Amino acid sequence: MQTIGVIGGGQLARMMIGPAIELGLELKVLAESSGSAARDRATTVGDFRDLDTVLQFARDVDVITFDHEHVPTAIILALEKAGVAVRPGSEALTVAQDKIVMRQILEDLGHPLPVWGVAETTADVEGFLAANGGRIIAKAPRGGYDGKGVAVVTESVQVQEWLALGPVLMEEMVDFSRELAQLVARRPNGDTAMWPVVETTQANGVCTEVTLPAPTGDDRIIEVAAELGRQIANDLNVTGVLAVELFETPDGRLLVNELAMRPHNSGHVTIEGSVTSQFEQHLRAICDMPLGATDSRHPWAVMVNVFGAMDLGRYGRLAESSDVKLHNYGKEPRAGRKVGHVTATGSDVADTTSRARAVAEIFHADI
Amino acid sequence: MQTIGVIGGGQLARMMIGPAIELGLELKVLAESSGSAARDRATTVGDFRDLDTVLQFARDVDVITFDHEHVPTAIILALEKAGVAVRPGSEALTVAQDKIVMRQILEDLGHPLPVWGVAETTADVEGFLAANGGRIIAKAPRGGYDGKGVAVVTESVQVQEWLALGPVLMEEMVDFSRELAQLVARRPNGDTAMWPVVETTQANGVCTEVTLPAPTGDDRIIEVAAELGRQIANDLNVTGVLAVELFETPDGRLLVNELAMRPHNSGHVTIEGSVTSQFEQHLRAICDMPLGATDSRHPWAVMVNVFGAMDLGRYGRLAESSDVKLHNYGKEPRAGRKVGHVTATGSDVADTTSRARAVAEIFHADI
Repeated sequence: MQTIGVIGGGQLARMMIGPAIELGLELKVLAESSGSAARDRATTVGDFRDLDTVLQFARDVDVITFDHEHVPTAIILALEKAGVAVRPGSEALTVAQDKIVMRQILEDLGHPLPVWGVAETTADVEGFLAANGGRIIAKAPRGGYDGKGVAVVTESVQVQEWLALGPVLMEEMVDFSRELAQLVARRPNGDTAMWPVVETTQANGVCTEVTLPAPTGDDRIIEVAAELGRQIANDLNVTGVLAVELFETPDGRLLVNELAMRPHNSGHVTIEGSVTSQFEQHLRAICDMPLGATDSRHPWAVMVNVFGAMDLGRYGRLAESSDVKLHNYGKEPRAGRKVGHVTATGSDVADTTSRARAVAEIFHADI
Repeated sequence: MQTIGVIGGGQLARMMIGPAIELGLELKVLAESSGSAARDRATTVGDFRDLDTVLQFARDVDVITFDHEHVPTAIILALEKAGVAVRPGSEALTVAQDKIVMRQILEDLGHPLPVWGVAETTADVEGFLAANGGRIIAKAPRGGYDGKGVAVVTESVQVQEWLALGPVLMEEMVDFSRELAQLVARRPNGDTAMWPVVETTQANGVCTEVTLPAPTGDDRIIEVAAELGRQIANDLNVTGVLAVELFETPDGRLLVNELAMRPHNSGHVTIEGSVTSQFEQHLRAICDMPLGATDSRHPWAVMVNVFGAMDLGRYGRLAESSDVKLHNYGKEPRAGRKVGHVTATGSDVADTTSRARAVAEIFHADI
């Protein structure tokens, strides 16, 4: 039996459990705490920054993968040196973990990017501000997620604390018409599979809603995004699922915003929306199995995140929403925390969207 | 959090694990052995015929349900007496566990049945043989499954050993054109939900293939089967999923063959085929949550069982079958054992069937 070790016990690891069972794979999780979302398969509770803990956990598994991108590079390299199959591997993860490295490599490969630069001093920030209309985005190169480590900057003093820690990535404020995400899966043997590009909606840097496929009167966007995703997965030698977050500009160009080398919030919609979900596909890819079909099961699928609390006590109010599917991450309530998502499917995008939103609203709680 | 205790660690309990996670329910399993199909959630390994073991297991759960119908009635009654919510309850299970009781009650309720009788002596068998063309079906009233406890009988001596143990159910050999199954879910509050009736194929009394919906030029069959299923679920006060196995006669009548008060092999096809799978629905029903929609996601879904062995080593041969979904029960190989199933979905029933069969064939092994 093939045994998979997931570092990190969040909802991504949690949503791998069901597909692993159906595929007949054994899943083990190295979780941060006993109450993690993936606690059902948390065979180890410990610190993913501690080499001994991680090596011990890896001893009983055939392949290591990740729930998040915060595992230190030194640990990933040590795993590989110990002969452990790590997927995605250090070569790819190094790019995903540092936004400056990622920008540089994507630029060298010729992929379309927002205008960007690196600041080491406030003078660098001032220069970039002056060249880009006085309003830019600054990003800490490492450790950010869900809007953390990202700021809109109009004065260099705003970046001063980050600069004390090291270089800061600067980007133009892209005048985008909307945000998209291209999901790709890639096997070690180089086979790739792309889902149709999705449209994503963000609030304060956090994904709130995803539509599969991205509504468009122009199928060119679907093809361009798929090809861009495929190329990046190949160029960076990614194994597993890769999410390429994209800006679509008013003149119809696609620019690469961020990369995530793991199942991603923009792909939750594939659980009901696609013949193969991103979670099943990630497992197939890292185990070097043939990839599953990425065709859609429905004309439209819409996912809406649930923040704060997703309590079972409200399930009784779902009688009128029998076709919307719930995904409860089993997390303690906390203001603004992603605690679950819901997905609706249907033949009309407006109707599908409103059904998904209505169910998410049932769980809305100000905490 | 609502905690569900499943008695029995087979593939039905196994396939509840994924939906329980997504709904945010905690699942505990009382398994027969440490290597059971549902071992991932086997919080207790012990004998389901031992009252202390079962009561101890039930202490930490909100509701008890079942992977099989072999739990002794005395244990179910003791659970209820101890105040445990048992779903389905003893009233319904008593009917499902004894085929003679089931026949009598369904007849009293006016549901359509094959001609049947009860034999206590070989003379009874001879009389029934003479009245039914010299070739009948005999069934042990309790404990049978997958063709076990069922025999085609032409001479009374064949039943002698069973008669020594107690009464035997006798049925006419129904001249059926095909077999169907109606899946129903029912909440404690009486709400029901029916999937479209499926066609099932048996070999030696074991289900081999299921098609959703049952192909028919006449939608009347779909309606008649759904109404029959709904009535039986209500009449018997079933909670959870009920499978009503049916004979369709050449003149277009439906006769009740068997009942199963739990998720059933004929419903595995709903995992991909339906908006709500039988496993998710069973959990919703026994937790008294609103039931999910039973609409189909595809025009056709076809499930084919895999017998003997379902080894990961053959997954590499699936490259050409990327749209067929695998369900591996994690069981040790054994000749004739149900070890998994595969499901294909599509818009053409013949093509969908042949794709599912081709993948099942990859796993075919004579052991």
